[in-house]
Amino acid sequence: MSEPTLLAKELDQADELAPLRDRFVLDDVVYLDGNSLGALPAHVPDRVADVVRRQWGDLRIRSWEESGWWTAPERIGDRIAPLVGAAPGQIVVGDSTSVNVFKALVAAIRMADAGRDELLVDATTFPTDGYIAESAARLTGRTLRPVTPAEVPGALGDRTAAVLLNHVDYRTGRLHDLPALTAAVHAAGALAVWDLCHSAGALPVGLDEHGVDLAVGCTYKYLNGGPGSPAYLYVRKGLQDRFDSPLPGWNSHAEPFGMDPSYRPAAGAVRGRVGTPDILSLLALEAALDVWDGVSVAAVRAKSLALTDFFLRCVAEYTEPGRVECVTPERHAERGSQIALRCPDAGEVMKRLIARGVVGDFRHPDVLRFGFTPLYTGFRDVERAARVLGEELA
Amino acid sequence: MSEPTLLAKELDQADELAPLRDRFVLDDVVYLDGNSLGALPAHVPDRVADVVRRQWGDLRIRSWEESGWWTAPERIGDRIAPLVGAAPGQIVVGDSTSVNVFKALVAAIRMADAGRDELLVDATTFPTDGYIAESAARLTGRTLRPVTPAEVPGALGDRTAAVLLNHVDYRTGRLHDLPALTAAVHAAGALAVWDLCHSAGALPVGLDEHGVDLAVGCTYKYLNGGPGSPAYLYVRKGLQDRFDSPLPGWNSHAEPFGMDPSYRPAAGAVRGRVGTPDILSLLALEAALDVWDGVSVAAVRAKSLALTDFFLRCVAEYTEPGRVECVTPERHAERGSQIALRCPDAGEVMKRLIARGVVGDFRHPDVLRFGFTPLYTGFRDVERAARVLGEELA
Repeated sequence: MSEPTLLAKELDQADELAPLRDRFVLDDVVYLDGNSLGALPAHVPDRVADVVRRQWGDLRIRSWEESGWWTAPERIGDRIAPLVGAAPGQIVVGDSTSVNVFKALVAAIRMADAGRDELLVDATTFPTDGYIAESAARLTGRTLRPVTPAEVPGALGDRTAAVLLNHVDYRTGRLHDLPALTAAVHAAGALAVWDLCHSAGALPVGLDEHGVDLAVGCTYKYLNGGPGSPAYLYVRKGLQDRFDSPLPGWNSHAEPFGMDPSYRPAAGAVRGRVGTPDILSLLALEAALDVWDGVSVAAVRAKSLALTDFFLRCVAEYTEPGRVECVTPERHAERGSQIALRCPDAGEVMKRLIARGVVGDFRHPDVLRFGFTPLYTGFRDVERAARVLGEELA
Repeated sequence: MSEPTLLAKELDQADELAPLRDRFVLDDVVYLDGNSLGALPAHVPDRVADVVRRQWGDLRIRSWEESGWWTAPERIGDRIAPLVGAAPGQIVVGDSTSVNVFKALVAAIRMADAGRDELLVDATTFPTDGYIAESAARLTGRTLRPVTPAEVPGALGDRTAAVLLNHVDYRTGRLHDLPALTAAVHAAGALAVWDLCHSAGALPVGLDEHGVDLAVGCTYKYLNGGPGSPAYLYVRKGLQDRFDSPLPGWNSHAEPFGMDPSYRPAAGAVRGRVGTPDILSLLALEAALDVWDGVSVAAVRAKSLALTDFFLRCVAEYTEPGRVECVTPERHAERGSQIALRCPDAGEVMKRLIARGVVGDFRHPDVLRFGFTPLYTGFRDVERAARVLGEELA
């Protein structure tokens, strides 16, 4: 047995999180795409079946109260809260990430001093954040200025209303310094809005601790909520009274069943709700969050770094030097839970990897992306992935 | 047997749609709340289980292509299209009704001549439409003017950019004259935006025939998509190139996987998409739409009117004159598929009806609302509901 194979076995044996893999439906594939779509938690199908057959089929309209449908957005928000370092009452679940970026940015602009006419956005962001930021700027008469996260401190000033940043870059896997950047944004008198899509569920976020103003994230990656499961919105407690939503749907009204023609916003995180919540997807997500019972995010982070360290070591072992370039930072403080390798034939290489049971994804034009989900990825999976990759790159 | 009981039996025997009831999960309850949450189609649980277990659990990320997840919003839009009189390629499904009202109104304002600074909205609308219209007006610097549908023709003018109307009033069940109002809006040079929540699936809409510009609707009432299932947006073919979305998410990009930092909208209805589609709910809806196979909307409308006529007749038979006031118009041309009865103790009466297995709903402050879903409501159900109502009102 080669040395990495032996090591992988030892690491798996020492891994305290290894038993969590049994909470998921997995097969012989090495699934390194949980940063795109998390695997199915094993108990979710029965829970969804109950929602469909009993709650919808038998109880029908009564379920809005009796099955807790109506309060699901804030209840599930409170389930996500500890995973991102938030006290209860600050997160609601619903709508897509894009729609929540829109709510957060327009609300942030409205909370900023009126004279602040500039919105900064990560120039390397997942595109939807940039498109939505442009729309928010256009509708509020602000100027949008794309800058790299490294340029943010120098770009901040009296004109800055708000800054939209990604905690982890979707393409490179780079982890940005949320505490320092949030502090810099605050020092300039602006609001910090963070997109947690690629960090929540993979590493500690510390929203409350670091004073983040608003945040959004999806739930179908490291939170395993299912394809296109609803996103969430965090509004810091101290800002909630000033949260002025551009999407003031009836679900965010102080008295939603009063059918009042005048809008009067509810108190608390509920103010971030819009229309009727999407119950099937919400309750699938609620069930999926059970896999986090008893799991510490710190332990997940430690394993995540061990997995990515080991992957890089195996890639170095199995792949000819210079064949791929790692675009994910080496430093732990700058690394999320994925490794992105660049090579000119990345698209073709990924197809061959998938055909051989190693599933990552390809990001245009030349990036092989491998996500490491500590709840269900083991070190032998990592070794196998690197070995197959090395063979396909040879 | 009393005369209405005999008549109900005869009407059920003559009802060609009666066998469709077997397509749903129903029990001994008379369910007259399908205008709030449609009953569960019997084949949906197995279809949802397949989406969860096989498509998500086994295929995982491959399902975006192999299970047709990516194209679900427009594919399911094309399934809804014939039910609202639209040719293919004009409807996308996704997001809530409130969010789609926002897209439609901002886009309509942007399509109108720049000098038109007024937005008309139905003053008696379901509140969310009014709240969202106010937000759309605020963000685009327009004035919002609430008027009743009857006042619309007189309120239209050179200042009118767009008009948001409900096809059927959620409270009274009044059906508004979509062809005439749309023609009046067009004659004034404005755009007509219709909310079809309480009409689609219950009566012919004729979006294309009557030249409606934009429309939105929910799918969990007469379309039986499940609790909070995604809403849809219709954009008339001739306007699609000018549809300028306030929510330009990556799903509406001409090349969504190009990861282009600049937004370039897709052609066609896809332009109305925003973020990652909510697959579990979307595919439950897609399955639910199978119950419409071979069903004509004209036949549904004929039965709907027969059901509401018969209900009114039975109420007259079983209830002391003057005990309730019917706020739904008598004239067929002005009636949707629900009957709203006003009485001072409506809240208490509805509680007692529900306890006796007749499920309608209560609308603050004094309305008993009964929805008639022709796919699964029979005439004996109607007779029983009216009889129990009469007893409870006595």
